[in-house]
Amino acid sequence: MSFPQIPKIEYKGPESTDPLSYRFYNKSEIIMGKTMEEWCRFSLCSWHTFRGKGADPFGFPTMKRHFDDESDSMENAKRRIDAMFEMLVKLDIGYYTFHDRDVSPEGSTLEESNKMLDEIVDYLAEKQKETGVKLLWATQNLFSHPRYMNGGATNPDATTFAYACTQAKKVIEINHKLGGENVVYWGGREGYQSVLNTDVKREMDHMAAFFRMCRDYRDKIGSTAQLLIEPKPREPTKHQYDYDAQTVIGFLCTYGLQGDFKVNIEPNHTTLAGHDYEHDILVASKLGFLGSIDCNSGDPLLGWDTDMFCTDIKKTTLVMKIVIEQGGLHAGGLNFDCKVRRESTEDRDLFIGHIGGIDNFARGLRNAAKIIQDNVIDNMVKERYATFDEGFGKTVEEGTATLESAAAFAVKAGEPEQKSGRQEEYEMILNRYV
Amino acid sequence: MSFPQIPKIEYKGPESTDPLSYRFYNKSEIIMGKTMEEWCRFSLCSWHTFRGKGADPFGFPTMKRHFDDESDSMENAKRRIDAMFEMLVKLDIGYYTFHDRDVSPEGSTLEESNKMLDEIVDYLAEKQKETGVKLLWATQNLFSHPRYMNGGATNPDATTFAYACTQAKKVIEINHKLGGENVVYWGGREGYQSVLNTDVKREMDHMAAFFRMCRDYRDKIGSTAQLLIEPKPREPTKHQYDYDAQTVIGFLCTYGLQGDFKVNIEPNHTTLAGHDYEHDILVASKLGFLGSIDCNSGDPLLGWDTDMFCTDIKKTTLVMKIVIEQGGLHAGGLNFDCKVRRESTEDRDLFIGHIGGIDNFARGLRNAAKIIQDNVIDNMVKERYATFDEGFGKTVEEGTATLESAAAFAVKAGEPEQKSGRQEEYEMILNRYV
Amino acid sequence: MSFPQIPKIEYKGPESTDPLSYRFYNKSEIIMGKTMEEWCRFSLCSWHTFRGKGADPFGFPTMKRHFDDESDSMENAKRRIDAMFEMLVKLDIGYYTFHDRDVSPEGSTLEESNKMLDEIVDYLAEKQKETGVKLLWATQNLFSHPRYMNGGATNPDATTFAYACTQAKKVIEINHKLGGENVVYWGGREGYQSVLNTDVKREMDHMAAFFRMCRDYRDKIGSTAQLLIEPKPREPTKHQYDYDAQTVIGFLCTYGLQGDFKVNIEPNHTTLAGHDYEHDILVASKLGFLGSIDCNSGDPLLGWDTDMFCTDIKKTTLVMKIVIEQGGLHAGGLNFDCKVRRESTEDRDLFIGHIGGIDNFARGLRNAAKIIQDNVIDNMVKERYATFDEGFGKTVEEGTATLESAAAFAVKAGEPEQKSGRQEEYEMILNRYV
Amino acid sequence: MSFPQIPKIEYKGPESTDPLSYRFYNKSEIIMGKTMEEWCRFSLCSWHTFRGKGADPFGFPTMKRHFDDESDSMENAKRRIDAMFEMLVKLDIGYYTFHDRDVSPEGSTLEESNKMLDEIVDYLAEKQKETGVKLLWATQNLFSHPRYMNGGATNPDATTFAYACTQAKKVIEINHKLGGENVVYWGGREGYQSVLNTDVKREMDHMAAFFRMCRDYRDKIGSTAQLLIEPKPREPTKHQYDYDAQTVIGFLCTYGLQGDFKVNIEPNHTTLAGHDYEHDILVASKLGFLGSIDCNSGDPLLGWDTDMFCTDIKKTTLVMKIVIEQGGLHAGGLNFDCKVRRESTEDRDLFIGHIGGIDNFARGLRNAAKIIQDNVIDNMVKERYATFDEGFGKTVEEGTATLESAAAFAVKAGEPEQKSGRQEEYEMILNRYV
Repeated sequence: MSFPQIPKIEYKGPESTDPLSYRFYNKSEIIMGKTMEEWCRFSLCSWHTFRGKGADPFGFPTMKRHFDDESDSMENAKRRIDAMFEMLVKLDIGYYTFHDRDVSPEGSTLEESNKMLDEIVDYLAEKQKETGVKLLWATQNLFSHPRYMNGGATNPDATTFAYACTQAKKVIEINHKLGGENVVYWGGREGYQSVLNTDVKREMDHMAAFFRMCRDYRDKIGSTAQLLIEPKPREPTKHQYDYDAQTVIGFLCTYGLQGDFKVNIEPNHTTLAGHDYEHDILVASKLGFLGSIDCNSGDPLLGWDTDMFCTDIKKTTLVMKIVIEQGGLHAGGLNFDCKVRRESTEDRDLFIGHIGGIDNFARGLRNAAKIIQDNVIDNMVKERYATFDEGFGKTVEEGTATLESAAAFAVKAGEPEQKSGRQEEYEMILNRYV
Repeated sequence: MSFPQIPKIEYKGPESTDPLSYRFYNKSEIIMGKTMEEWCRFSLCSWHTFRGKGADPFGFPTMKRHFDDESDSMENAKRRIDAMFEMLVKLDIGYYTFHDRDVSPEGSTLEESNKMLDEIVDYLAEKQKETGVKLLWATQNLFSHPRYMNGGATNPDATTFAYACTQAKKVIEINHKLGGENVVYWGGREGYQSVLNTDVKREMDHMAAFFRMCRDYRDKIGSTAQLLIEPKPREPTKHQYDYDAQTVIGFLCTYGLQGDFKVNIEPNHTTLAGHDYEHDILVASKLGFLGSIDCNSGDPLLGWDTDMFCTDIKKTTLVMKIVIEQGGLHAGGLNFDCKVRRESTEDRDLFIGHIGGIDNFARGLRNAAKIIQDNVIDNMVKERYATFDEGFGKTVEEGTATLESAAAFAVKAGEPEQKSGRQEEYEMILNRYV
Repeated sequence: MSFPQIPKIEYKGPESTDPLSYRFYNKSEIIMGKTMEEWCRFSLCSWHTFRGKGADPFGFPTMKRHFDDESDSMENAKRRIDAMFEMLVKLDIGYYTFHDRDVSPEGSTLEESNKMLDEIVDYLAEKQKETGVKLLWATQNLFSHPRYMNGGATNPDATTFAYACTQAKKVIEINHKLGGENVVYWGGREGYQSVLNTDVKREMDHMAAFFRMCRDYRDKIGSTAQLLIEPKPREPTKHQYDYDAQTVIGFLCTYGLQGDFKVNIEPNHTTLAGHDYEHDILVASKLGFLGSIDCNSGDPLLGWDTDMFCTDIKKTTLVMKIVIEQGGLHAGGLNFDCKVRRESTEDRDLFIGHIGGIDNFARGLRNAAKIIQDNVIDNMVKERYATFDEGFGKTVEEGTATLESAAAFAVKAGEPEQKSGRQEEYEMILNRYV
Repeated sequence: MSFPQIPKIEYKGPESTDPLSYRFYNKSEIIMGKTMEEWCRFSLCSWHTFRGKGADPFGFPTMKRHFDDESDSMENAKRRIDAMFEMLVKLDIGYYTFHDRDVSPEGSTLEESNKMLDEIVDYLAEKQKETGVKLLWATQNLFSHPRYMNGGATNPDATTFAYACTQAKKVIEINHKLGGENVVYWGGREGYQSVLNTDVKREMDHMAAFFRMCRDYRDKIGSTAQLLIEPKPREPTKHQYDYDAQTVIGFLCTYGLQGDFKVNIEPNHTTLAGHDYEHDILVASKLGFLGSIDCNSGDPLLGWDTDMFCTDIKKTTLVMKIVIEQGGLHAGGLNFDCKVRRESTEDRDLFIGHIGGIDNFARGLRNAAKIIQDNVIDNMVKERYATFDEGFGKTVEEGTATLESAAAFAVKAGEPEQKSGRQEEYEMILNRYV
């Protein structure tokens, strides 16, 4: 056992003070017609949780895991996988995610790397079968190796571009084999460090070509995995081409890819882009592009990716309200792309971080359901837009209004009546639920 | 005369220490086949320069102009117009811009407002004829009046939406009458203050409807003015739907309006959105959407719109390089949406601010031309992407590459050669020109 | 009556859904030995609440109050005061605050302004007597009038400096007369817009001289009001000399004023300075400088002062914990330097904003008391520092340790034991209380 | 030879296009009475330049140096030192800086680490003698090793505190032995990650105790090295106690250490703290606390430490103007705490980065001297404050003014005359020099 001191985490209700218990996440409890498990579709990530050891730009790793001897051996890779599945079972959550190079070592050639990866994939398949846990998504790491220092799909060098394609091809294949429900594309170095040495247009064209090639190959091998782009504004690159949800949606529309890709939103990235925590989830959902969520949190006063567990109940409430309103996450999930703080060095901290994260989203789900069922806020909003449900307003929504019909209406209507936005009252009402 | 103490501003060359002279802007001098005037197409704005009096959220106006008695009378409006044309002539620049409510008072009804506006438009037409100055663009103010507190085109109330349409209709008409080369849409309150009381999707749909109606009306009356949306991320609204260039381009593509609108970039807004000064100009240009530029500057450490004259020569150099590369601004221009500091209370400051702004872009133009003609930087960039000019790289650009052809190529090519990005050398070379 | 439609606000308990009731603020309820009223010492401000009308840099006022005819007359000033005291009584809170120029008009000379102010002060004294409401603090407005555009106490012109002193003198006098418990100094324009035209050293020296003169005069007239400086990093000035709590404390120590001034912390300013909401309150309290709190809130993604009511319960909990730990606010209070949103145009919104603010701090007080009484978190913290309670650690705190004694201890002790910081567990525990 | 392909860098004048030459730095040229070398006192750092290999939070190292076999051996340490001195000689600069753990490996015990460090120090002494290069400063690394994850001088554990003291003691000794002119204290983890688990007051007290102990030991061993604290607002810690220059100065005054410590300013940290590039250098200089400068640059749009070479001539001009005004840097210098971009992988890039940095400060020095000699700007500033040179203003500066004398003066003087701040003109004049 990797975590002998950690028991299976049980639901003990809101009054529990046991840090190794759930206070709000009661997996099979029905909320608005679905189990909490179905609404949340929680997922563990292989990188932060099983590869992260607390290194930061100013310091060495602080964490030791007794299941990890820090070597690049296949045995070690499998031990880490064992630990991951033990944690999945102990937390009782149903999905996991990985990068190709998290779960399997990089060899000295592509062929060698792929051969090792195949062996690991077989091992993962076994563990999936054994535990019933499923793969939410796989992705390719096109940013850690020095060869990608100038980008993967946007590298100025065609050989590197081809290398990136080869990794992407393999991930589509293994994801298909493992029944992964999505494939994610996060392009940490797809952007520019300096406009002086960059041909922005060519790089964007190449990125679009890469996505088209991925889509075609997914179709060709018969995979139906949903393809997801994960926006981030900057870091490690100064400016990333996939800045935020609307930039990505615009990019997809510009290159005619809007039918084939959705987005995987990480709220930590959203706040780095200057938007509220829930903003990208909201606009992506409303425009029909919300595929999945990396349910972490950032610090709005820090300018880098902190990948913290979300501790703000108001934020989880708003997010779960959007999720309920779009009928659930479908093929997506709530993936814990989160890491414990560098100073939280014990295995117990790893579990407590996840339990807190799970419980905060579960609490948010409960709050959101209550808000929707009470229908106070939504009614107020509906009433606010009521003039677009009839008369001239309706012609605007139907597309038949013109500036001339508008002018005729406006002259007749005279000065519009002033209507308070009542923001403080909305906020007061929201605070009743959190 | 409005500015009796200010002479006509002359070009006196780089050694001049006369603040009321140009050191770099030599209007008729030919640079790379065009006059400086043709490249720059400078424009004065009617709002900051002739209506701004130094009020800020914490203080009352500080500036008095002897041509302005602060009244809402038509006489006063015309005196301000006289002052504007006097300044245009003294600075020797060829374009101006206005909002409907800057140049003409708001009456107690729409009809009254429009009647006064018609009289003002006649007066402007006369002044244009008299001086040869042209209208770069007109726009409608849909943000100052309390009726627009919840937005214009995105107002939850259909009557207010109709009111906004009516103003937009009038502006299309008067712009056409005055030969304005563009119409600009800046939606200061088209966004949300709180997601709690906002139906984001309906508001975006209404905004798209508004733009469609504007386009249709422009076509109907036979105007060929270019339509421009001006992005801004926030302020006065917490989140604006027209966040930055790529968000606007994505919006246009989402709603099928990409053939009809371009963007008017204000670098001050670009930095507020978290991008480098030149970023939005660059991506808009490369994607074919750059229409015009409000050539001001912000302070990256202040979180609000400061609308300063640009004093950074490196920035003006980068911008003018992009302008030259796209063959000029066509119907657009460099519009001084800039204001002197609140403490710069004399008329002389107003001229010095503009002279500095003009000279800095003129100096940038000279630098940019030299960079392009020397061709050192561009050659380095071209060389950097050379592997996409042939072989596998070329198939990527031609759209015939697949993940499989890429993989075959990658396996054969082996580990890509490492190539330095040489950013410090690019920066060193750039510093030779500024 | 100014607010005929608004009843007296009563405590109705946590289940109340009446927006015009308190759910958590039960004035006379005893919490840890004091009434809620004594802990909170809530205060209304005269500026945002009674003078603010919703103007912003891009728009005209949106709010009309029927008690305010917008004139500068003394009758109007008194009507606004009547409204303020009616609101104080209806909300049942005990303190108010004002700037000299909020409550009384500015005349054409200093003498005239002071004469009007004297009449208003008599009127305020009457209202205080009538209602039992007290003055928390008064302050001088040295930023709105154009004469202060280059600063008050840091103005490059000695005549303006003297003018500022004269206003400050008068405020010390009237505050004394009205029994004000503090005098506040907020220097909105005490800083620089540009280092090019500023002698930073002379300006800081003048600011220190101003504070010394104020202290001396307070002492001379026998006032015992606590003097408070309110930090803010920027806005309206680019850089303010009173950037944040520690900058102000450093300034006071540099100029030998540390015994005479404390700080008035506005968390909205704290976040603008790049610190967490509670940071300045915490460090000011721990260093013995926390005098009073302007209990508003900002938006960390907006770069300007939004002066919102605080809606984040976790933040109010942390603040009230600090307040309890220092034994209350003493002469200070929780002053609502808050404004309703520009779109919240009804009188009812004004009350709801304040009720929400009061309730959120009352809820925070309840949470904080429970945290302190349970003593789980504080015990964990105490244990974390236990090695400084004895042995070598104790000599560090007593001031007798040397590098040599430390080295001797370290060599003997060997590699320190690793101790997890357990941040996720602290956060999980905090979430049990909110 | 470590850099066989790199020649000695020579001054070739402003027209040179050889990237491996100086265009502005002419070491022995006299500027305002001192050589350029004396004004600039350039210094190489051992960490970024000789230990940095391009790793970032998302990627592995990209750079290989053929003098570095990546081992922890003493031979390797000495080879790196050889490379450093070769570079010092080739760049012809006179100073270097190091952390204890950059130049010498960490052993398994303190004793072992110190023994190896002694050997390295002997080697450095030899190299100094051989080349004439001097040590600008040494410092202790109290942030990289996991033992310091919760801080060094502010660690909650007294044993770790003692460990930090022991390293600091050793650095004071070896710095003294090597003739180092300063000792620097940068506390990367002296701050808090979470207020929940932190006793801020005790930690600040411990930090003050640490500084007192360092000062006492320096005095005891007869060292006269200047002690310098280096401010930084955050990163790696969320909030550092040494936030910016004024916070540090305030801290020193609070704990009575103001006579013993100065500050080492890194402008990259200044901008992270929300201030203009030159701000901390300016206020530290004017308050008498400017000791030395880490002459790098950040990106105001990125929220982390980029440690770039400064490429902005206006900034280097402003900095060198302050340096000239305080009569030079005395014991301090301009230390290149800078790194080449991760993608700039060649040795040549390392030289070009430094050459660019040196030349930009040299160009700034030339500009600053010209500004001071022309005396246009300083005269305008002096004139701006002239009213404090006589009459009432003078009594303010002399400390004899009172609120009463001010009021008497103000009443007599009447409304102050409005004087424009003329910021645009100052900026225009500055642009003549850059």
